[in-house]
Amino acid sequence: MINENRLLQRLHDLSQIGRNKVTGGINRFSFTSEEQQAIELVTSYMKEAGMTVNVDGVGNIIGTYGEENETIMLGSHIDTVPDGGKYDGALGVLAAIEIVQTIYEQQLPLSKKIEVVAFKDEEGTRFGFGLIGSRAMAGLLTYEELQKRDASDISIQEAMKQFELSPLPLEKVKRNDIQAYLEMHIEQGKVLENEELPVGVVVGIAAPLWLEVTVTGVSEHAGATPMSIRQDALTAASEMILAIEQMLNGTTNSVATVGKLNVEPNGVNVIPGRVTFTIDIRDIDEQKISALESSILEHLQKVAERRNVTVTSKVLQRVKPAKTAPMLQQQLASSIEKYGVQPYSLISGAGHDAMNMANVAPIGMLFVRSKGGISHNPLEYSSDEDIVIATNIFYDTVMELAK
Amino acid sequence: MINENRLLQRLHDLSQIGRNKVTGGINRFSFTSEEQQAIELVTSYMKEAGMTVNVDGVGNIIGTYGEENETIMLGSHIDTVPDGGKYDGALGVLAAIEIVQTIYEQQLPLSKKIEVVAFKDEEGTRFGFGLIGSRAMAGLLTYEELQKRDASDISIQEAMKQFELSPLPLEKVKRNDIQAYLEMHIEQGKVLENEELPVGVVVGIAAPLWLEVTVTGVSEHAGATPMSIRQDALTAASEMILAIEQMLNGTTNSVATVGKLNVEPNGVNVIPGRVTFTIDIRDIDEQKISALESSILEHLQKVAERRNVTVTSKVLQRVKPAKTAPMLQQQLASSIEKYGVQPYSLISGAGHDAMNMANVAPIGMLFVRSKGGISHNPLEYSSDEDIVIATNIFYDTVMELAK
Repeated sequence: MINENRLLQRLHDLSQIGRNKVTGGINRFSFTSEEQQAIELVTSYMKEAGMTVNVDGVGNIIGTYGEENETIMLGSHIDTVPDGGKYDGALGVLAAIEIVQTIYEQQLPLSKKIEVVAFKDEEGTRFGFGLIGSRAMAGLLTYEELQKRDASDISIQEAMKQFELSPLPLEKVKRNDIQAYLEMHIEQGKVLENEELPVGVVVGIAAPLWLEVTVTGVSEHAGATPMSIRQDALTAASEMILAIEQMLNGTTNSVATVGKLNVEPNGVNVIPGRVTFTIDIRDIDEQKISALESSILEHLQKVAERRNVTVTSKVLQRVKPAKTAPMLQQQLASSIEKYGVQPYSLISGAGHDAMNMANVAPIGMLFVRSKGGISHNPLEYSSDEDIVIATNIFYDTVMELAK
Repeated sequence: MINENRLLQRLHDLSQIGRNKVTGGINRFSFTSEEQQAIELVTSYMKEAGMTVNVDGVGNIIGTYGEENETIMLGSHIDTVPDGGKYDGALGVLAAIEIVQTIYEQQLPLSKKIEVVAFKDEEGTRFGFGLIGSRAMAGLLTYEELQKRDASDISIQEAMKQFELSPLPLEKVKRNDIQAYLEMHIEQGKVLENEELPVGVVVGIAAPLWLEVTVTGVSEHAGATPMSIRQDALTAASEMILAIEQMLNGTTNSVATVGKLNVEPNGVNVIPGRVTFTIDIRDIDEQKISALESSILEHLQKVAERRNVTVTSKVLQRVKPAKTAPMLQQQLASSIEKYGVQPYSLISGAGHDAMNMANVAPIGMLFVRSKGGISHNPLEYSSDEDIVIATNIFYDTVMELAK
């Protein structure tokens, strides 16, 4: 069993770094003195847990326990969004350290070495480009991307140099020697809360396809144009939005969201002539995303034709989803059962470092219940009880894999 | 028969005042030197037509022909919206003058005197408050309303003083002695064009009820919230908008328009938490507006309950619709038939000075076909042929009423 008081105390102590005393939110962005303080604290915890600590070329903090050839990697991140919560990222790193320290204190024999990583800049707050550390470790980060600049016109590469990192060559940051990558993270959604379960096994990390749709009708006087001869872009868009919702009916892992919508000219007494809206389509299965994309676009076209308006669309971004390894899902489920909890599978709608690591290793993820699904917010909360049981379950899985 | 060349020439000449040479649009706002020029030109036309010209306390230009006790009043306005067209308002005033001049030149005997009025500030461009002249003549304008201010903080009353108008007492501007008020105006819609008719008889002027509806759901992460547990304010609003459209199906004179809609927080990957939209409901029958209002609000409530969101609404403005007098409708229809045209009844979706005059006199309105329904735009167009036949029909009606 892990040392729950130590874990909860460390979670508290880390949350004091970068804390806004007015809002209670945490501001710990990459390449800042707050992050540096957090790195130093986490490094000291790793050392207490019997690990040797190294920093790779992009700034990932890597603690290593043991000298066996095969590697189990545990990780998450310690940076935050603006005014973020105390659990997102931090919990995964501290739980991983706690697991290693428990093994270290009991001197349990292992057949694999364990690495704990605190990835660099997961949130992307400063450069509008996140997951930097895990991108690099998965061999996905390019030199071109290191030239992305923040609001003060400082590039990622320049920021790295200020913190004495030598990111080049990126090829040396890439890892190919990991047998399994495991991440524990708060859910950031309400599924586990609705199911009244403390933890869940992630079956895949959904990735978004973002489309922008433009519906063009004819803008006319709301009083002088009878209903029957209108070419109203907003009633057409409304029908499209409802159709999208209906097409997602009964799907389990797919979601589609119209989050942003703008009407032109947007006057009380003017029939809308143009409506632009976005669609965020997510699934853990790339083919399902493509199938949804096609059928949505086909349907929008039909609505447009019937209503005598035109519709066009363009792709804003298309990210590759990642599936977790069935073997690791099963191991997590079996550890969950040991603790008397019903194993429950769910998807991750938000992106995580694990998504990148899936390119170089089998990945597994354990979600911890979030109160009200609130995240990226000072109100983000997971109970001590849930954290402790989740860490013990995670510990059991690590032991089963590494023993 | 009226003198078509003179009418078309005057329409052209008046359209040169305030004309933007780049866009071709006309900028002739009340209490400006452009309007003053237009007033002088129109006054000279009235005098050529044998009328004596007076200006009342709010600036209505009134030409009077004859000295009989009973009065037939013809009118419209000569101010424009920004970059407006050459027909809106101007056609009604010039056609009325042409009719009187035709009578004058032929020295036809009349049993009633005819007044032609160019109403002050119909469009409301400067003070965001239109129909000033007809409001005053109908006894609806208040002293409080004269304190409304333009962008330079000048009140209506101050602007009047600059043009040597003495609006007080308003009671003296009000008229109670008009046997019939008649207005010829471009349709500003596409109904006559669709019916392939040059003119139509207005059965009533629809007035808008403006509602603002707020739908409140829960704003959550688009990825982390499965479809089944969402409280999406935008899908709810979409269902409401379609329901409104459907409820208007098969109605003849009613229209309802959702013209303005705003989404919060309006982010691609965020489920909309709040949507605010307006509904513009119009009919010529006040009771029908009320009935529609009730059934729409009731339906929105049902949609909200089913979708687990809340809906609230408030009235932004409620204007009284006006019906035209059946006797005047019949007279216009009979004049239309004389010219071999099929009489066709339609409603006016836009407001007109006649709407106010309905409070103090029976009103009649003749609409002239608008190309493409375009108005308040340099592209506003009615053909010379349509203008000539409309003015002759209007002339016939005036003669039937005043002879």
